[in-house]
Amino acid sequence: MGSGTGAADRPRVVIVGGGFGGLWCARRLAAAAVDIVLVDRTNHHLFQPLLYQVAMAGLSPAEIAAPIRSVLRSQRNARVLLGEVTAVDLARRQVSLDDGATLDFDWLVLAAGAKTTYFGHDAWEQVAAGLKTVEDALEIRRRVLLAFERAERAGDPGEVERLLTFVVVGGGPTGVELAGAIAELAHTVLANEFRHIDPERAKVVLVDSGDRILTGFPATLSHSAADQLAELGVHLRLGARVADIDGGGVVLADGQRIAASTVLWAAGVRATRLCESLGVPTDRGGRVVVGRDCALPGHPQVFAIGDMACHTVDGQALPGLCPVAMQQGSYVGDIIAREVPPERRTPFEYVDRGSMATIGRSRAIAWIGDTELHGYPAWLAWLVIHLVQLIGFRNRFVVLVTWAWSYFSYKRGARLITERKGEKSLVRVSRQ
Amino acid sequence: MGSGTGAADRPRVVIVGGGFGGLWCARRLAAAAVDIVLVDRTNHHLFQPLLYQVAMAGLSPAEIAAPIRSVLRSQRNARVLLGEVTAVDLARRQVSLDDGATLDFDWLVLAAGAKTTYFGHDAWEQVAAGLKTVEDALEIRRRVLLAFERAERAGDPGEVERLLTFVVVGGGPTGVELAGAIAELAHTVLANEFRHIDPERAKVVLVDSGDRILTGFPATLSHSAADQLAELGVHLRLGARVADIDGGGVVLADGQRIAASTVLWAAGVRATRLCESLGVPTDRGGRVVVGRDCALPGHPQVFAIGDMACHTVDGQALPGLCPVAMQQGSYVGDIIAREVPPERRTPFEYVDRGSMATIGRSRAIAWIGDTELHGYPAWLAWLVIHLVQLIGFRNRFVVLVTWAWSYFSYKRGARLITERKGEKSLVRVSRQ
Repeated sequence: MGSGTGAADRPRVVIVGGGFGGLWCARRLAAAAVDIVLVDRTNHHLFQPLLYQVAMAGLSPAEIAAPIRSVLRSQRNARVLLGEVTAVDLARRQVSLDDGATLDFDWLVLAAGAKTTYFGHDAWEQVAAGLKTVEDALEIRRRVLLAFERAERAGDPGEVERLLTFVVVGGGPTGVELAGAIAELAHTVLANEFRHIDPERAKVVLVDSGDRILTGFPATLSHSAADQLAELGVHLRLGARVADIDGGGVVLADGQRIAASTVLWAAGVRATRLCESLGVPTDRGGRVVVGRDCALPGHPQVFAIGDMACHTVDGQALPGLCPVAMQQGSYVGDIIAREVPPERRTPFEYVDRGSMATIGRSRAIAWIGDTELHGYPAWLAWLVIHLVQLIGFRNRFVVLVTWAWSYFSYKRGARLITERKGEKSLVRVSRQ
Repeated sequence: MGSGTGAADRPRVVIVGGGFGGLWCARRLAAAAVDIVLVDRTNHHLFQPLLYQVAMAGLSPAEIAAPIRSVLRSQRNARVLLGEVTAVDLARRQVSLDDGATLDFDWLVLAAGAKTTYFGHDAWEQVAAGLKTVEDALEIRRRVLLAFERAERAGDPGEVERLLTFVVVGGGPTGVELAGAIAELAHTVLANEFRHIDPERAKVVLVDSGDRILTGFPATLSHSAADQLAELGVHLRLGARVADIDGGGVVLADGQRIAASTVLWAAGVRATRLCESLGVPTDRGGRVVVGRDCALPGHPQVFAIGDMACHTVDGQALPGLCPVAMQQGSYVGDIIAREVPPERRTPFEYVDRGSMATIGRSRAIAWIGDTELHGYPAWLAWLVIHLVQLIGFRNRFVVLVTWAWSYFSYKRGARLITERKGEKSLVRVSRQ
């Protein structure tokens, strides 16, 4: 903090979003003589890769989230604001917040992430829950656990079957994790806890329109993942396009209906609305097209990173993964700290340290360099890497304890149904 | 499980409520040849004594709650239903559930607890949050944490002061715990995390109409508690009656207004509506007046226990404490298991093993037999006893870790603001 006399003479950096991209950028600027304002709609940094565990009652939200304010506590050049950026005026170098207030900037880093998209079928949002926020995860947890509770009270066998059928749409990592976790929940965790239904008879269907799941991985690993899902009892429906979703279940393009009380949506994300308001080119997913230095074309001091950005290398867009966002955050932070002019910037290079997807207890796939792992070794690698990356000592320790406990006891640590305001009470109950 | 051939010939026991009373009763019946149905509105048993820690961002809800279904997993004679009992027909020995279904019973144990009461001022409910459920605790957590976030964005000094003023109404154990915990949150946990406000300037006011707090304890301990609260910076307003509460704060009976953005209500509980529907005498708090065997007068096979019951011993009603409910649950379970007729029942006797109230880090009071403890020893006793009583190994361990971590780091483990559906976005922000 060179010039301690006043903030006015130091470059103002506004970072939109406290996810991996935004936070890593802010941290890279810790020693820089700048004034940072980080704006986020929530008060916490969320460890997205474990969000499905909150949805599946394995972890509590606080165990995978850390207050952004707390993370940046000792970084005196950073101020954290809880709020939503509604517009960016690139010409005036100003962002507007939800209440009409504005923040001036010299440098702007857009890292607001993505949200679930239903590809124009807005009505599906009510019946098919997505998984992007803590609230989403709690809602999925509520719906899944309630389905079993309702089935225990239901009399009609057809209704019980419908209540115990879970459809997950989308065969990417999130869909695979959710499908595997529901199957485990039903077949091990909840077994023996009900008296009228047998949770082991729950049916989990994973629907994907492609010809294999986890297309980001080599075909051998995709097939391994499919086998591991099958071992857990998950029904895989490949090449199946969803035509409609309603309260009764899912209708496929071939006309077949899967009667299900719970439908989870893991089929697509789209950049937040903020991108559209910028008036710069976006890709099909609504993401801002950026140059190789992560900057917006014609705006060398404005960057878009992470899931908000379409960053093309050799004709291939970088995937929407945490490591991409983190590396971009650090890269952009570095440019800002050293005030590198556009012509002297080395293009961003993504260092791919491998990727992995978990399927369940002792089940996963991992692709690290040329090495393909599956089953127990992949799962162990997944476990260690995710534990290490969690922010906060307490979280790491508590998650370790909770996982160890779950592993040996086959129980889940956060099986709470919490009410949503306005939701009406339970379904029909037969007398028995 | 003597007669395994069918349920019809075994006495049917319906237990309403999975709190301390209901659960202890069910457990006492584990070996009895009865069929138990335990009905609760939530899926979890809640460790109420630590609920204020959830409200104060110290613990996650799942750490103080256990699925009732899971607790009774291996008790094969018990069935758990998620639902609400809306009415009891004592003559027909039948309870009605929320959807109109009914359950027949031979024995009935009413243990549905109490809810927050505003003594007829229903409008206060919206502005002064009570603390009885997990949802209540999350709502308080949200409001308290949001107040600091809003203050950081506010410009007007008067508005900042109002946002940083917290009023707790009611000087019982819950009110004292909340007031102490907010003061600690502001003065230690949040210190240094804001750039425009100083959380240490937050003001916590504890309002009580009596002449001392914690009237369940001897006067010496009340005064010790008051001193310990003062050390934490809590302002005590004794002999102050609340005349009105609105969005702007609290108005006292003497006309003084305390401008505060957050008002918490810990001033009173009342038995649930179910009591009124029974058509039997209730006391001023709406509680069912029971005999010395916990049974309703004239209904020897129907019991009311815990916070639902007015159980008078030597002209003195038993207090609404967990140990009372637990002991009553076991007592009633014993009567049912042995089918003791009314004339041969030994009256219930409450064994008072002492009571305690915590005020903050290293601060508490305890009253055990003739021994009065305060400060660190009382706090240590409180800590150990509450850890031991938590249900579930994981919870005990995780809470221990979280407490130890909080003790040494001065941080809180669950500082998450989660959104309520329908709530509009943030308040006014000044540009600075």
